[in-house]
Amino acid sequence: MLRLLSVNFRGLTEHKTLLGLNFSTSSVMAKSKFEYVRNFELDDTCLRNCYIVVRLDGRNFHKFSEQHNFMKPSDNRALGLMSRSARSVMEELEDITIAYGQSDEFSFVFKRSSTWFKRRASKLMTHVTSQFSSSFVYYWKEYFGEQPLLYPPSFDGRVVLYPSNRNLRDYLSWRQADCHINNLYNTTFWTLVQKGGLTTTQAEERLSGTQAADKNEILFSEFNINYSNESPLHKKGMTLIWEKVNETTTKLIKRPDEGETEINVTRTRKKVTSHSCDIIGDQFWEEHPDILESDQC
Amino acid sequence: MLRLLSVNFRGLTEHKTLLGLNFSTSSVMAKSKFEYVRNFELDDTCLRNCYIVVRLDGRNFHKFSEQHNFMKPSDNRALGLMSRSARSVMEELEDITIAYGQSDEFSFVFKRSSTWFKRRASKLMTHVTSQFSSSFVYYWKEYFGEQPLLYPPSFDGRVVLYPSNRNLRDYLSWRQADCHINNLYNTTFWTLVQKGGLTTTQAEERLSGTQAADKNEILFSEFNINYSNESPLHKKGMTLIWEKVNETTTKLIKRPDEGETEINVTRTRKKVTSHSCDIIGDQFWEEHPDILESDQC
Amino acid sequence: MLRLLSVNFRGLTEHKTLLGLNFSTSSVMAKSKFEYVRNFELDDTCLRNCYIVVRLDGRNFHKFSEQHNFMKPSDNRALGLMSRSARSVMEELEDITIAYGQSDEFSFVFKRSSTWFKRRASKLMTHVTSQFSSSFVYYWKEYFGEQPLLYPPSFDGRVVLYPSNRNLRDYLSWRQADCHINNLYNTTFWTLVQKGGLTTTQAEERLSGTQAADKNEILFSEFNINYSNESPLHKKGMTLIWEKVNETTTKLIKRPDEGETEINVTRTRKKVTSHSCDIIGDQFWEEHPDILESDQC
Amino acid sequence: MLRLLSVNFRGLTEHKTLLGLNFSTSSVMAKSKFEYVRNFELDDTCLRNCYIVVRLDGRNFHKFSEQHNFMKPSDNRALGLMSRSARSVMEELEDITIAYGQSDEFSFVFKRSSTWFKRRASKLMTHVTSQFSSSFVYYWKEYFGEQPLLYPPSFDGRVVLYPSNRNLRDYLSWRQADCHINNLYNTTFWTLVQKGGLTTTQAEERLSGTQAADKNEILFSEFNINYSNESPLHKKGMTLIWEKVNETTTKLIKRPDEGETEINVTRTRKKVTSHSCDIIGDQFWEEHPDILESDQC
Repeated sequence: MLRLLSVNFRGLTEHKTLLGLNFSTSSVMAKSKFEYVRNFELDDTCLRNCYIVVRLDGRNFHKFSEQHNFMKPSDNRALGLMSRSARSVMEELEDITIAYGQSDEFSFVFKRSSTWFKRRASKLMTHVTSQFSSSFVYYWKEYFGEQPLLYPPSFDGRVVLYPSNRNLRDYLSWRQADCHINNLYNTTFWTLVQKGGLTTTQAEERLSGTQAADKNEILFSEFNINYSNESPLHKKGMTLIWEKVNETTTKLIKRPDEGETEINVTRTRKKVTSHSCDIIGDQFWEEHPDILESDQC
Repeated sequence: MLRLLSVNFRGLTEHKTLLGLNFSTSSVMAKSKFEYVRNFELDDTCLRNCYIVVRLDGRNFHKFSEQHNFMKPSDNRALGLMSRSARSVMEELEDITIAYGQSDEFSFVFKRSSTWFKRRASKLMTHVTSQFSSSFVYYWKEYFGEQPLLYPPSFDGRVVLYPSNRNLRDYLSWRQADCHINNLYNTTFWTLVQKGGLTTTQAEERLSGTQAADKNEILFSEFNINYSNESPLHKKGMTLIWEKVNETTTKLIKRPDEGETEINVTRTRKKVTSHSCDIIGDQFWEEHPDILESDQC
Repeated sequence: MLRLLSVNFRGLTEHKTLLGLNFSTSSVMAKSKFEYVRNFELDDTCLRNCYIVVRLDGRNFHKFSEQHNFMKPSDNRALGLMSRSARSVMEELEDITIAYGQSDEFSFVFKRSSTWFKRRASKLMTHVTSQFSSSFVYYWKEYFGEQPLLYPPSFDGRVVLYPSNRNLRDYLSWRQADCHINNLYNTTFWTLVQKGGLTTTQAEERLSGTQAADKNEILFSEFNINYSNESPLHKKGMTLIWEKVNETTTKLIKRPDEGETEINVTRTRKKVTSHSCDIIGDQFWEEHPDILESDQC
Repeated sequence: MLRLLSVNFRGLTEHKTLLGLNFSTSSVMAKSKFEYVRNFELDDTCLRNCYIVVRLDGRNFHKFSEQHNFMKPSDNRALGLMSRSARSVMEELEDITIAYGQSDEFSFVFKRSSTWFKRRASKLMTHVTSQFSSSFVYYWKEYFGEQPLLYPPSFDGRVVLYPSNRNLRDYLSWRQADCHINNLYNTTFWTLVQKGGLTTTQAEERLSGTQAADKNEILFSEFNINYSNESPLHKKGMTLIWEKVNETTTKLIKRPDEGETEINVTRTRKKVTSHSCDIIGDQFWEEHPDILESDQC
């Protein structure tokens, strides 16, 4: 028996010889001999009492969107899939109170008091990235139907900490302002191309140096498009939060003397809901006071 | 036009009023006002001249394997899918020279001189995790056929740095010794259950306190199983490296005066290959001298 | 000339030969050849919008205090020197708004908006430690007179970040509560030894398991000492802040037609002041509203 | 008794009321209530198996050297004091195997296997900085005699890790190449001013754009100075290492029948020694093989 094993486990046997042990303990010994490598792992705990934001960005999604024939300027199937994947993340990972997405990016906010994964940055960001990525492939068919996914896409992630409510809101405002600026540009750009007959180069030149008001004016006077009537999903992006919803179900109840009776049962449960509204101003935050925790803590 | 917008962009309009700007610049101004939040992102560059190891571990894979009826002690379909996903990672991310996997974990080694993603730890670990996770779902059908994937699985990741070749080899040895110990235990455990008719509790008790030699003895004397003949894939795990392979293709060439001629064209290209061999001893490393870079640098 | 140099700069000459350069550029070239080592320095920027606390602790100060015959339970000369050194730190380093010290430790608080040294943790903590250490030796004579300093003492330092005003106040409260507990213990202990005639071992046993009230009772009933009348410096430690003070100086002014006139000139300037008061309750903070910055930022 | 205390410990009493505790436990309770702030301290352990270099730099030493009338281009008293302070650091902190200094900077190298202070970066750098700073003031008089130190000077520090012997040697080479370049420039500059009668502006212009060979030529042809004969201390800086030295002492021994006899006792002990030699080439390292640890570990 020993002889056979000594052929197989060359490395282990060497250690055996070296250490003068009989084989029965050598593999365990060998493992313990290597275990010092564990101590090279460094701690990356996130500072307490700060919001932990994990932001994902699609890798090479410009190319990905071309290869999968995304609609211009925005593809509702892709946005729906992003939102569905983000919901999957929120349902799997505790302590995410709000998520915001636009284009090929999504930000997830862990509450400041979270102790999820002992606040280890690497665990938090890889879990979010992993769940989002596998969900993106898993739910593809629900949004793209028969159009095949050509290869497994990839996202990168990062962690950023925000110590105060103001900082966190400014972070989310920054992303929504980015969404607005890009969408106004892209809407105008693709209208000039698709309806105005310009080449992409001509459209780019036409928009060079223009302000927001100029783009609104182009849309309105040349194409009779009122930008404010455009889809909120495109203008505001997607904000996912937890909300209490009432769910009413009908149940048949048998009673011994009365026969069957139909009754309505209403239960309240928490559910991830998606919104395409302004999150820069105060109204959203006043309507959802539970998202933020007090700065006084 | 302005009026309409001022309804929509409540937040932005507030800033406008505050700053006394006309609207055409307010959204850009608003964005720049928020951009300070960028500076909260902290640097996580990996120390130079160290191997960067990203290790992935399946999350709740015990439950996952039960729900998907994995074979005991090891499921070759699952191992094949792990290996396929790891290959996808190696083909997408430069500078990974070796990867080692067993059970529901996989380690990827970036060469010590790599400047991929400027050596930023978060980028490296999230990209590896994302590509692996999306590939796992994408290639599921190739390994599990009609058996459906019930939900999107998730992996966590971490980064560990190793300054010397000895440290890196000891890390990989540690993982392979872990593979050996677990596989010997699991093989014996499930043999006792599946062939010996023990309950799982009885098998656990039977193995409690036993050494490697005891388990080998049980397999050999009671079940006539020579552990050294067991599958290398299960005993040694999966080692993925880049190797040069010759590919010969046949081409038809037309020459003006001679008509068509058939010729063989052999090209050398690099390809990810998978091995189930010992990586604890020296032989593997002597046979593949390009994986490690000199400590003298 | 070259020959002579080639004798001296052996290392540099080697590089010359290697690189085939003439000597005039070789030392500069050699330096640039080595400069890659700079990139091994890692960033340690402190998260924005958090208070940065640098705490110093004396190294082996138990032994140091014995060798320098410190008074028991507290030595006012040593405390004075600690306070003087802390003032030196505050006067040299911008953005420290409050410092708190007791026993052989001192904590310095940089305001949360500080950009001093680009918020680099290593710079902040080493500068504070260095200035404090050199000041401790420099001002020794002012507090210990002819008693010589036997050897250069040393302090260690650390950086801790606090995201909210509550966290920062709780940190300072923690240190002051520590001061109170230790001083009550030490006062009782040394009274039992110095006035009660107990050995140190007997005093230790006597106090084992006692509560604050028990110690107050021992002092009061056995030694007629009302602990609340003890020195605030010992009970509360030292709190250093910046305050505006009026300084009135007398100046002689010559006027062409009137001769000399004596006038009083009062100028307001900021000065480091030391307090031994409670900083756990609200009163101190209400009286000095400028120390904390708003959590709303 | 309680009443008196409740006046003093306002903060603590508040907590008492809040928590409904009697006073005897309230201060301890209060302290434990605050102790959560400890968890805000983040880990900064240095990666294993890397050399840990702590480098100190004088703060505002240009001004400091002017105010203390340092000799130009180099002041031997100041260099002696730097070296003395560095020795004090090496004698107090274990595991520093080599230190290199020049001008107002000093680098200390902890061996790669060191576990001193559990390899915590903040502890290592602050202790080195503190010991150096207090020593600088403490030993001032030994080098500057009656010339007074005008104020407590300060140094900043940083930690850099080097994974290989080559990296570490290149770091030290970088600093010594810097010493050479600066010293050649400064020697020529001050010779032009002090012996050549140029103003500092004229000297600066004269040297603008010159190479090493040009400066050597100026010194040699205009001032008959052979740079290679200049002081090694200035050209090479100070390298401190541990060396075994034999110390012979004479002892008088009384023997009962022979009377007193004088004998020589030679003991070997380790001592910090200072060298001004080339550390870029191989010779120094071959002569002191114990400074570096093997890369093979």
